[in-house]
Amino acid sequence: MDSSPRTFIKLDSSETQPIHLQIYHRFKAAIESNLLNDGDRIPSTRTLASELNVARGTVESAYAMLLGEGVFISKGQSGTYVSTLLRKPAAKKLRTVVPPVAKQPVSQTADIELAKSVSPIYLPGCPAFDAFPRKIWSRLSGNRVRAMSAEEMRLKEPQGYEPLRQSIAAYLRLARGVVCEPEQVFITNGYQGALDFLSKVFKFYGENIWMEDPGFLLAAMLLKDLGANIIRVPIDEQGLIVSAGVDKCPDAKLAIVTPSHHSPLGLPLSAARRIELLQWASANDSWIIEDDYDGEFRYSGYPLPSLKSLDQYDRVIYAGSFSKTIFPALKIGYIVVPSGLVDICNEKAAIYQRGFTITSQMVVNDFITEGHFSRHLKKMRDLYAHRRELASKALMDVFEDKIQISSHKNGMHFVASLDHQYSDTEVCSSFNKLGYGIYPISKWTIDPKYNGLLIGFSNVPNKKVAEEMAIKLKNSFIIE
Amino acid sequence: MDSSPRTFIKLDSSETQPIHLQIYHRFKAAIESNLLNDGDRIPSTRTLASELNVARGTVESAYAMLLGEGVFISKGQSGTYVSTLLRKPAAKKLRTVVPPVAKQPVSQTADIELAKSVSPIYLPGCPAFDAFPRKIWSRLSGNRVRAMSAEEMRLKEPQGYEPLRQSIAAYLRLARGVVCEPEQVFITNGYQGALDFLSKVFKFYGENIWMEDPGFLLAAMLLKDLGANIIRVPIDEQGLIVSAGVDKCPDAKLAIVTPSHHSPLGLPLSAARRIELLQWASANDSWIIEDDYDGEFRYSGYPLPSLKSLDQYDRVIYAGSFSKTIFPALKIGYIVVPSGLVDICNEKAAIYQRGFTITSQMVVNDFITEGHFSRHLKKMRDLYAHRRELASKALMDVFEDKIQISSHKNGMHFVASLDHQYSDTEVCSSFNKLGYGIYPISKWTIDPKYNGLLIGFSNVPNKKVAEEMAIKLKNSFIIE
Repeated sequence: MDSSPRTFIKLDSSETQPIHLQIYHRFKAAIESNLLNDGDRIPSTRTLASELNVARGTVESAYAMLLGEGVFISKGQSGTYVSTLLRKPAAKKLRTVVPPVAKQPVSQTADIELAKSVSPIYLPGCPAFDAFPRKIWSRLSGNRVRAMSAEEMRLKEPQGYEPLRQSIAAYLRLARGVVCEPEQVFITNGYQGALDFLSKVFKFYGENIWMEDPGFLLAAMLLKDLGANIIRVPIDEQGLIVSAGVDKCPDAKLAIVTPSHHSPLGLPLSAARRIELLQWASANDSWIIEDDYDGEFRYSGYPLPSLKSLDQYDRVIYAGSFSKTIFPALKIGYIVVPSGLVDICNEKAAIYQRGFTITSQMVVNDFITEGHFSRHLKKMRDLYAHRRELASKALMDVFEDKIQISSHKNGMHFVASLDHQYSDTEVCSSFNKLGYGIYPISKWTIDPKYNGLLIGFSNVPNKKVAEEMAIKLKNSFIIE
Repeated sequence: MDSSPRTFIKLDSSETQPIHLQIYHRFKAAIESNLLNDGDRIPSTRTLASELNVARGTVESAYAMLLGEGVFISKGQSGTYVSTLLRKPAAKKLRTVVPPVAKQPVSQTADIELAKSVSPIYLPGCPAFDAFPRKIWSRLSGNRVRAMSAEEMRLKEPQGYEPLRQSIAAYLRLARGVVCEPEQVFITNGYQGALDFLSKVFKFYGENIWMEDPGFLLAAMLLKDLGANIIRVPIDEQGLIVSAGVDKCPDAKLAIVTPSHHSPLGLPLSAARRIELLQWASANDSWIIEDDYDGEFRYSGYPLPSLKSLDQYDRVIYAGSFSKTIFPALKIGYIVVPSGLVDICNEKAAIYQRGFTITSQMVVNDFITEGHFSRHLKKMRDLYAHRRELASKALMDVFEDKIQISSHKNGMHFVASLDHQYSDTEVCSSFNKLGYGIYPISKWTIDPKYNGLLIGFSNVPNKKVAEEMAIKLKNSFIIE
């Protein structure tokens, strides 16, 4: 084959690309398209420069790049060649390699993937997007970005932005009864980020961890992936049955609970059980993670105090998030750790060089300190209480006694329990095909007695939509 | 003791707080200050309402909150009491609990903590803060925040913001010779976040991992914390000595390398070694992580192509970051994984619900697609080349032959090698007391032959400062 470069290198003086780059790219294209083959000898820089009528240094620049990439190899006096080692096989550009790690079955995460493109109406855990104070947020963001200093552009703060940690400590003391110093607050990449961070502190691998049954599906999957052994502890009308946990695994290292508003059933953990749980943890040197995922939202009476506020034994790690109180795409959560864990958390934060986009943390901080956060929460409490009524009334009107809606007036979703003649997974699957995202409770539990739908109400805008949704849901029950 | 509430509950009509909250807080304060003690009987709601001259329902609300918190306990007919179970010991408010996990010695992370409050002059790895196009960044941010849609407020995208992944794929193809699909790109929380994410995919625990010696201190600490067994592989003037790695541990699961610009010495991995390394990985089903931490910055010739661009075997995971090309507080990095790893990476991303503040990812994307990124990089190349000259010339003038500066004209720092009569750790320690942040290379290696200072030059603004810095550094050598 004629490997003379004249056959493929046609320089184009109208191109804006420098000549040496034109030469470089044309050689690569020639190899890709097999005009040049492995081991072919390349003309000397002098020869090519003369053929192309360009300066020799220009050709040398191109060759240097190709040699640097290993596309050409130099064999000293005998000349320069197309490498026989580095070319990709012509037939297939990307070889599929099966990694030497156990692959999860796709179905394991299929339920998580759901929430990406669905309508927020009925989606559990979504704040009301139509009621977010965008103008304020936009103004605060603009101010922060314009005023960003060189020092702020460099901030790492693996524990999180210091002023935000202070604001969170002040907020939690007032709103959730959590008395803590800012040093005990660590910003996390949402709740999953909190669990992942805590796995560095506690080494979950091979450890027994109590989880409520039913309980948050995503947390269970994450803990399992980290190698933890999940002990499913049943709940009753008072919440987690501590004695059942003790029967199953008395010396679990951790218990993960949702005391303010059980996830997903909505009931609070009773005072007696709180005491029992704290005493168990203290007696066993175990730890408790309190997932206070929507404790801010309670529509009759005041928000329940957190379990952490009762923690005289310093065994509770409190986890909260702005995903539901501000918006999910922020991905900013936080934990409060007992003072005895602060040192090791600082160590781990430094080793993993945690830290999250600084601007967002600053804007959240301004949102809190300027009072917008508490005003927004207050408004949302009223709004969600109203929307809960809209959604539940419409469902009860349409379904009559075919479903029962949980009575706990809190959070951002309720559970609509079904007769066992219907399958919650089938109803969800059929309904979600319309572009919605409700969850079947049976996926969150190992106990077959649960059969129901987790339905969010915070984005149900009015009576008309509430009724339309209820009818659409009812139609999903008729599966031939 | 007289536990009559008259002694501590003085309602204040001028307070804005509702009456029942005043009652609630005053009871809590009374208990805190031992005016009320464990087991004290509390007056009935009727009695207290009458004493305070408020509606009984008001007192009931306060009691309900205190009962809910477990501060009071109800013993049915016999009345309501201050709980004996829940109060914190009066003597100490926070008990220090030593966690049942091995604590890292503080010295382990002392070197990382350094960079928080020091001057950026001489700090390695810091982009030039005085040259960042703030106005453009501010405008792009403002546009994005103002236009944020409800759907964007909800975006999770555990793999990262899809358009940004596309832009990164396009950028890498052009600038670093990495041919990949957007599906292969995963956004990470910086480089440490990349390693942490990859530890979910590969399970580093107990695995052998090659690292260059000297090599990036932080990566070594992180891998060790994840339970990996680090195999230190020496380097010579061609970079990593692959045969030495094979001698020490032929079947390591991973090799982590910095082929474009060895960290910290600055030399590139030679073409021959690149081939040797790729062939080793292919033959052993091992993986290579290419840490291309500042491959964009080369001041003589063109940026070297990445190792990934030669990876015909699909064994290389490419890791990059915007910390050095935009600014560090963004905390946005990325990896490109072989197509055979895409499925498992998607699974892990979903399980850990990764995803980072969406606005920042959008602004980075706009910065790239509108051409600001490549213009900025081009400017920084010229600026850093100039500042490198300023800094190295000043040092050579001041030190004459007492130090040698590495000749590789790339990156954002150089190594100033010292005679063994001086100790790099002592010089650093003495100099950094002035508020600077240079690193001693001896901390990055197990080989005692290395003795030198890692000095950043990208924030050395002019000749005058360069000279002042050199003189200050020289003064740090005179240790009595």
